[in-house]
Amino acid sequence: MARRNVRHMVTRVDTAGTVPSVRRSPDSVAAEEPLEIRVGPAGPGKRSPLAVTMRTPGDDLDLAIGFLLTEGIIGGADDVHTAQLCAGDDTPNTYNVVDVVLSPGVAAPQTDPTRNFYTTSSCGICGKASIDAVRTRSRFDVTADPTVVPAGLLVELPDRLRAGQVGFERTGGLHAAGLFTAEGKLVCLREDVGRHNAVDKVVGWAVREGRLPLAGHVLMVSGRASFELTQKATMAGIPILAAVSAPSTLAIELAKEAGLGLVGFLRGTSMNVYAGTQRISTD
Amino acid sequence: MARRNVRHMVTRVDTAGTVPSVRRSPDSVAAEEPLEIRVGPAGPGKRSPLAVTMRTPGDDLDLAIGFLLTEGIIGGADDVHTAQLCAGDDTPNTYNVVDVVLSPGVAAPQTDPTRNFYTTSSCGICGKASIDAVRTRSRFDVTADPTVVPAGLLVELPDRLRAGQVGFERTGGLHAAGLFTAEGKLVCLREDVGRHNAVDKVVGWAVREGRLPLAGHVLMVSGRASFELTQKATMAGIPILAAVSAPSTLAIELAKEAGLGLVGFLRGTSMNVYAGTQRISTD
Repeated sequence: MARRNVRHMVTRVDTAGTVPSVRRSPDSVAAEEPLEIRVGPAGPGKRSPLAVTMRTPGDDLDLAIGFLLTEGIIGGADDVHTAQLCAGDDTPNTYNVVDVVLSPGVAAPQTDPTRNFYTTSSCGICGKASIDAVRTRSRFDVTADPTVVPAGLLVELPDRLRAGQVGFERTGGLHAAGLFTAEGKLVCLREDVGRHNAVDKVVGWAVREGRLPLAGHVLMVSGRASFELTQKATMAGIPILAAVSAPSTLAIELAKEAGLGLVGFLRGTSMNVYAGTQRISTD
Repeated sequence: MARRNVRHMVTRVDTAGTVPSVRRSPDSVAAEEPLEIRVGPAGPGKRSPLAVTMRTPGDDLDLAIGFLLTEGIIGGADDVHTAQLCAGDDTPNTYNVVDVVLSPGVAAPQTDPTRNFYTTSSCGICGKASIDAVRTRSRFDVTADPTVVPAGLLVELPDRLRAGQVGFERTGGLHAAGLFTAEGKLVCLREDVGRHNAVDKVVGWAVREGRLPLAGHVLMVSGRASFELTQKATMAGIPILAAVSAPSTLAIELAKEAGLGLVGFLRGTSMNVYAGTQRISTD
């Protein structure tokens, strides 16, 4: 099976002294491999490639199912008939293809070349169209979720996330996404070279556990909060998204439209709340 | 014209005191909007959407041209007949579409749904196939470039990059790519919410300036070195890629295959060299 990290020889150079020091030693590097997600309707028909994503191997079924959910193709575990690694055809690498058969009655996505799923999840043209596309496809209404979390609890999440980042400790090259309860309990953490993959792995896990919508939860991500991550949170019914770093304009606009609490620069004792301020209590 | 950053009201919360402090004030946020890249052959035929990328507006023609170059669709500026924002059809948002007409004799890319350009740049299945795809399409042989750069010069690049990151200073939400000469002179710096976009903007600028192949240059990026960024450097003929953070396994493997010097964790006085060690001198 494909590994999550691989040892590589590395030349470590330090120029601090009068003569640079040079030392060769092995180092753990985060694995990156393409994963092709194939989807098709129930029955004997062939599945079509829907997307290829560069990901860190591991939890690939969760990744595929989370991707299908956050793209609005499925609404829950019942919409998936089977999901398995390798379709059993002449594919040479059996660990880099996930084959998903949808349940009867679930429409297979159009594999339309004008849509590029992984980059934008919408047909683009303008940010408003992208937001509209998420609204159209979302099955859960985050605005109906009354979740409020104390600021004093949120500031503890980065350390709790970091404590679970085994792969990051080893490689320094993995993003993380952690799903917390409103009481701050970590229920699922995934790491990946792609932050969007880490989120899809968390969401896919929750789908398979029958936990959707993820009302009453906080999704915490390393790094920045892009439109894509905000979309994924919204599609999974998560009411609060918190990021260590900055959000983008489109992430803020979608969060406001969807009723999501969006927290950025969550570091030390402070944070910036960009949307859904009422979800963060400061009493 | 679309702006590169936008003011948003933000609620700043700090839990350091006995009672959390709450303050509302405006903050600059990095703009994110979709850009659709349309490509077609010379003549009156319609251009087809090739990719949609979420990017920070600005330098969009460079982004489109850099993308076409790093994907192997064009080999230089001569392969582009015209590139313009807005095709003049009924598109509502004229600043989020770049329309590229290829020169006579340049084959238009297949907009094949089984290929997802922005995620992997190859039809995937395994990392080796992805590396082979880059090798097949690259027009420049990086191995023939004798460029060697002193370690003592490389350690100065992060500060030089950071000094030029106007947008990051303002928003904290932008990645950067900087093109340096082998003597450490910064010749082009671009910022974007997507690191791959920042690199494409730099490469597109170089294409339009007639500077390809970029032999004798160093590409420095904020954050990590993925397969995708390594591919882009290779396709542009850049012999050294340096990153502030970690590389992935596939980035290292491609760099080794292509003869690229790959430097990671370039911070303070030190760095890790993962491929092309001979390109970094420590005398």
